[in-house]
Amino acid sequence: MDINKKIAGEEAVNYIKDGMTIGLGSGSTVNWMLKKLANRVKNEGLNIKGIPTSIKTELLAKDLGIPLTNFTDVEQIDLAIDGADEVDNNLNLLKGGGGSLVREKIVDAMAKKLIIIIDESKLVTHLGAFPLPIEILPFGWNITAKHIANFGCEPILRKKEEDVFVSDNGNYILDCKFDRILHPKSLHENLKLLVGVVETGLFVGMTDKVITARNGEIVMIQH
Amino acid sequence: MDINKKIAGEEAVNYIKDGMTIGLGSGSTVNWMLKKLANRVKNEGLNIKGIPTSIKTELLAKDLGIPLTNFTDVEQIDLAIDGADEVDNNLNLLKGGGGSLVREKIVDAMAKKLIIIIDESKLVTHLGAFPLPIEILPFGWNITAKHIANFGCEPILRKKEEDVFVSDNGNYILDCKFDRILHPKSLHENLKLLVGVVETGLFVGMTDKVITARNGEIVMIQH
Repeated sequence: MDINKKIAGEEAVNYIKDGMTIGLGSGSTVNWMLKKLANRVKNEGLNIKGIPTSIKTELLAKDLGIPLTNFTDVEQIDLAIDGADEVDNNLNLLKGGGGSLVREKIVDAMAKKLIIIIDESKLVTHLGAFPLPIEILPFGWNITAKHIANFGCEPILRKKEEDVFVSDNGNYILDCKFDRILHPKSLHENLKLLVGVVETGLFVGMTDKVITARNGEIVMIQH
Repeated sequence: MDINKKIAGEEAVNYIKDGMTIGLGSGSTVNWMLKKLANRVKNEGLNIKGIPTSIKTELLAKDLGIPLTNFTDVEQIDLAIDGADEVDNNLNLLKGGGGSLVREKIVDAMAKKLIIIIDESKLVTHLGAFPLPIEILPFGWNITAKHIANFGCEPILRKKEEDVFVSDNGNYILDCKFDRILHPKSLHENLKLLVGVVETGLFVGMTDKVITARNGEIVMIQH
């Protein structure tokens, strides 16, 4: 067990107030947040509604007794708490290793505030050591992959054992190793504008606060 | 029968040369092109391969005996011949009334040349009298629709009888009435950059030549 993940995940729950609708992210640090949140719901009678960003999170939240609501019924999301694969100095994120990048982005973009909880190893100077996930349409996927490769990466079609991995939205994911992403905003925009690209794992200018922990102490990063 | 559609559709076949791979668009004018093309294949032994952009075109082409190839096997498309719902003075297109806008855009964008065949009523000063089709992900579609409405339109979720219309890619389509689209390039880019938007029906800067007919005479428009 990584005690720093637990500390960061639990700290985020302090930002959840009675009556809020909360976007529930995905990943191991988020799971600690969910457990702590479930405690507050059970022991303090905290009245919240959760919007899960993945099937895994939905199942865990149900199991823990966190009240969930239907995304189509929601008028606003007060706060989203999510993880990330990488976070740069400007709080831009690289996400999607888990394969739910589009749902996460829809929920995170809709939330009035976004808190990212990570272990310290995810903090980087430049994004890109982790391959960038890009969700694309299955039709013509190899042509789309060629256009993406022109931006200086080698796209790898994500597999699940022998089969092509299919996202929650029925699409494919290309994992694209860039090494160093110097301009995440323009890279995201240029990739997203390609025909066949549904979404990229670059979350630019969306994060309000990052919570991590070092040697058991909380570390906050915000602008 | 609209004689001008037939004349425009058949004229486009003159640009098809032996050995070409041809993107086959969709619609009533394209159907005239397909019939003429099938004649040349049958009577002159013209050797071409077609890539259909819709299930309807695929079925008609097969029925007519036009040889087809698998999109994933194709290295390049020499020429695409497609229809449009509107064409403006700069040869920008509004497409997607038939619901195949993404496949059409992937094929048309890949083609080295794009010829658009239309009846004269599709020529407009500004795009937008025809509602702009926008393909979006089903997850969070109503949130995406709200973001799109902020651009000054009223998005209508496309239905098929009682049910939601589902595209070839498993997505929804919003028909968005803008009245006048003054800046198609920037409107397309801003819409496509929204989370949840897969593609728009604005085809900007892609067309090489427009073929139409007036009073039985061919009219060519190109830059």
